[in-house]
Amino acid sequence: MSQLMNVVIQGAGRGIGLAMAHKAIESDANHLFLTARHPAATKGYADLPPGPNITWLALDNLEPDSIEKAGEQIRSQTDKLNRVICCSGVLKDGVIRPEKRLADIDAEALTYAYQVNATGPILLAKALLQALRGDHALCFTSISARVGSISDNQLGGWYAYRASKAAQNQLMRTLSIEMARYNPNACVATLHPGTVDTALSKPFQSHVPKGGLFTVENSANMLWSLLNRLTPKDSGGFFAYDGKPIPY
Amino acid sequence: MSQLMNVVIQGAGRGIGLAMAHKAIESDANHLFLTARHPAATKGYADLPPGPNITWLALDNLEPDSIEKAGEQIRSQTDKLNRVICCSGVLKDGVIRPEKRLADIDAEALTYAYQVNATGPILLAKALLQALRGDHALCFTSISARVGSISDNQLGGWYAYRASKAAQNQLMRTLSIEMARYNPNACVATLHPGTVDTALSKPFQSHVPKGGLFTVENSANMLWSLLNRLTPKDSGGFFAYDGKPIPY
Repeated sequence: MSQLMNVVIQGAGRGIGLAMAHKAIESDANHLFLTARHPAATKGYADLPPGPNITWLALDNLEPDSIEKAGEQIRSQTDKLNRVICCSGVLKDGVIRPEKRLADIDAEALTYAYQVNATGPILLAKALLQALRGDHALCFTSISARVGSISDNQLGGWYAYRASKAAQNQLMRTLSIEMARYNPNACVATLHPGTVDTALSKPFQSHVPKGGLFTVENSANMLWSLLNRLTPKDSGGFFAYDGKPIPY
Repeated sequence: MSQLMNVVIQGAGRGIGLAMAHKAIESDANHLFLTARHPAATKGYADLPPGPNITWLALDNLEPDSIEKAGEQIRSQTDKLNRVICCSGVLKDGVIRPEKRLADIDAEALTYAYQVNATGPILLAKALLQALRGDHALCFTSISARVGSISDNQLGGWYAYRASKAAQNQLMRTLSIEMARYNPNACVATLHPGTVDTALSKPFQSHVPKGGLFTVENSANMLWSLLNRLTPKDSGGFFAYDGKPIPY
């Protein structure tokens, strides 16, 4: 990618999104559009404060209007986005917990996970559409998870999270088909970041085999390198951090 | 199956669900539990009125409490269910339309489709759990759709519907893994009914190749026959009306 790259990172306040923002800076991105629910309250905002090349925007996946508004603000500043990386996701918080069994599922949590993890990225794609069209290089990706694979699901549990990631994969796959008509140089893909040492994985790290837990920097290095290698031929795919395809 | 079969059909007021209820009657089912949002207002209720072997229950997939309540009423009458068939689904109504393009997607419709098509069946499974456990023959299925397949998605569009069916497939796959621990004779599967002449498919029938549109009776005959053939070894699968597996 040239240094004229315009990048959107949704969920850049911490974790993988913030580490990806640092990778974009290292790569001399032209303009970085970073989102968080409350930008000024985040580590990302402190690390990478607003400036001529960095714009922070408030965006909450649970508030569709905020997605539309952030999209408008980005489109008012550029008509060509080269990378969009959707990073925010939820597995466990005050609303959702990763269910061990059917008896633990909850209607509210099922919908909440879906709205944060699945509909967030596709609504952002809609809001950014005019800056995705054209013939410029574009990689539109979202962080999914291997446990979102239906065919690879051998362990069960985590109903809401698994369903939300399967839905995210389907929405992105559907987007990849449509985007091929709008931009011949577009790649739309979902990515598995590995098990990364973030707030999301914290409660489950004791189950991770030795050497299987990545730092956020390590994961972001691999994902950024993968973004550099993805081409329009890869559009519609679901890839692990090392580029290996994952079945749906 | 013996004539001592206890059957739940969720969404039996019309369409495939009602045709499946007729198949259950033909098969001398012991007791039929039939649900609809407003039972007394349906064709199903007129065709198969309440009686010693037929119980109608109000159930609305958008109202989790109604699912729990219907489950309680069923469990109070039997502790052994042999077939549960979740049939209600939405593609187009006052809230949702099958989106031709990204610009048509809508946050509310995305969530609505998910709640009707994906979370409805899994919440019913939770509500019925005590009557699913045991060692009796059990087939727990939901009507999915081939367009819910992510890997088979070549045409794009229909974002909300496709995502909801992929999520349904994932939730049912997850259930299949857990159910294997609770009942060695359980099969949990998702089914593609073909393109069936129902209210759901009406706006799209002109695109169906000649001979490719099934009557509800034809589809229900094939699906019922498939239910008779499914075994615990098939649990976790996604099958077309003719028994052919569909990739996720």
